[in-house]
Amino acid sequence: MINRIDHIAIAVQDLDAALGTFLDVLGCDPGSVTIEEVPSEKVRVAFIPIGQTHIELLEPIGQEGAVSKFIAKNGEGMHHIALATDDLAKETDRVTGAGLNPLGPPSTGAGGKKIVFLHPKQTNRVLFELVEPKPHHH
Amino acid sequence: MINRIDHIAIAVQDLDAALGTFLDVLGCDPGSVTIEEVPSEKVRVAFIPIGQTHIELLEPIGQEGAVSKFIAKNGEGMHHIALATDDLAKETDRVTGAGLNPLGPPSTGAGGKKIVFLHPKQTNRVLFELVEPKPHHH
Repeated sequence: MINRIDHIAIAVQDLDAALGTFLDVLGCDPGSVTIEEVPSEKVRVAFIPIGQTHIELLEPIGQEGAVSKFIAKNGEGMHHIALATDDLAKETDRVTGAGLNPLGPPSTGAGGKKIVFLHPKQTNRVLFELVEPKPHHH
Repeated sequence: MINRIDHIAIAVQDLDAALGTFLDVLGCDPGSVTIEEVPSEKVRVAFIPIGQTHIELLEPIGQEGAVSKFIAKNGEGMHHIALATDDLAKETDRVTGAGLNPLGPPSTGAGGKKIVFLHPKQTNRVLFELVEPKPHHH
């Protein structure tokens, strides 16, 4: 099942500037933010926790990745909604059974999580990601 | 403070068709959905609960409202992110103090909640709403 929204992703040109803005909006502690590069997706990513979800800021690396192309076409703004599930394969089968098409095979996103994107033409131009967060290790 | 994301709003042309699609994506119970008209905003609204937040589908009523104009300009898609706070006046003061400008005075949104929108030109073209949910009455 879908347990919660894992994150809402925003495409931005300048991660550090945008992070300052979003911390102002959310009023949260800069120490709670994690930043990483995801070379496979050609992005640098900041995760800002809020409640049981996150705002994810996506800054393109270079001009060849999907986020760079998104900004060139649409400008900055909301990019996708990620839905957390404990069982990505099962949820992918469920939505495929309902007639929704994955954009491609499962891949690896930020934090080494397994992800699948769904085709936004079938979901009112909203890009959905299904994501299976890794179990926590303490 | 900002406690959680209250909802993520999606502008759609046909609420009933979109609701079927989004229930397929989220795999949730149709009985959990609430639908209402908000004449002041010229929209019909569906709320789909997911974890501690909601997906809000916005269907324009007529062609004069902000959502109708959004769809005419941008097509369907993600429209705004609403942040829940227990004290709208205090949070509005806080973000104003950080240099962010409200789009207008507080108004009344879906469910009779007090809301304020922030100017998206200052927040990387993301439209943020601050919302003070009503206390629950049992």
